[in-house]
Amino acid sequence: METLVDNIAGYEYGANELATSPVTMEDLELLKQTITLDSDDQKFLRMAGDVLEPQTESIINMWRGVISSMPHLAFYFKNEAGKTDEQYKAKVKERFKQWIMDLCYKPYDQDWLNYQHEIGLRHMSAKKNKTDNANAAPFIPMRYVIAFTAVVNDSIKPFMAKNGHSLGVIEKMHKAWCKAVLLHVTLWTRAYGGNEW
Amino acid sequence: METLVDNIAGYEYGANELATSPVTMEDLELLKQTITLDSDDQKFLRMAGDVLEPQTESIINMWRGVISSMPHLAFYFKNEAGKTDEQYKAKVKERFKQWIMDLCYKPYDQDWLNYQHEIGLRHMSAKKNKTDNANAAPFIPMRYVIAFTAVVNDSIKPFMAKNGHSLGVIEKMHKAWCKAVLLHVTLWTRAYGGNEW
Repeated sequence: METLVDNIAGYEYGANELATSPVTMEDLELLKQTITLDSDDQKFLRMAGDVLEPQTESIINMWRGVISSMPHLAFYFKNEAGKTDEQYKAKVKERFKQWIMDLCYKPYDQDWLNYQHEIGLRHMSAKKNKTDNANAAPFIPMRYVIAFTAVVNDSIKPFMAKNGHSLGVIEKMHKAWCKAVLLHVTLWTRAYGGNEW
Repeated sequence: METLVDNIAGYEYGANELATSPVTMEDLELLKQTITLDSDDQKFLRMAGDVLEPQTESIINMWRGVISSMPHLAFYFKNEAGKTDEQYKAKVKERFKQWIMDLCYKPYDQDWLNYQHEIGLRHMSAKKNKTDNANAAPFIPMRYVIAFTAVVNDSIKPFMAKNGHSLGVIEKMHKAWCKAVLLHVTLWTRAYGGNEW
């Protein structure tokens, strides 16, 4: 996927300009333990990545379909007059596709940690819209960032079945996926959370 | 379970003293939509409740086993000297058992909503330890409240299989459970979250 990355506007994974995450590598290690995300899960995530790579466009289209069907979520792509910022939506889509790949393949190092914090900020008024010069709602409430993981987790399983893996392997890929999504979203809440995060 | 409820110390579900949740019934409805938690899920949750009711002690023991095995989580039952407050732990256990039943059976009404907010506060320095006069760490960080759902979700499935339901039905009970847990935890984060919750 490295060839794709250069073409994604606003995708600043590993960029020097990114702030260091306030979450330390030690905090991350304890979070991974809490989620029981281990090296076996990471093996199944890479396997899932191989199955999902040619399907990222379809996956995002499906999630976008859910968002479009719920006005209270579609709202966050719209300006005050209720008009969707299509350019913004298209740019976020490319990064969202890349996120699926990163979730499956990227090691949990400092660059990864910093980018998760950046993603959190980009959902908040601190940074939302700024990367893409978008004209849309100023922030996405934390509750929807957490709650939407239900859709992200439930709907991914059929896509994981496309390469003919056994049901047992698909189950393991899916369990690893759910843990990884939980880790990501937990880190994205760092920017929203107060002193007791 | 109504007979049990009277005997649970600090279980104030529906009590007049409870504050009204800052989350409205309309907010709740949109959250349920986002999580795609519907009446079918609630049917399977009740079915799960029937299977889980005689097992709540074993389930909490299993979760407590995971917590005990992770010093960074066991920490929250301990005082500054590193001594576990066993009385506190025992009282919370009874409420935790009841929580499993409430998750499966209770309707999503104002009483339910208010109690979820109370549970959030009881994880924070605002209210932790106060209900039980406990001598333990002042708050549980939000990140662990979210992250621990991985354990709560992964480990419940075998308990759901105890009454001989088909794999398809167990799968549906489990999916409903995961959605309900997500709804609860999202609401518990209300007290932690700032303006952009």
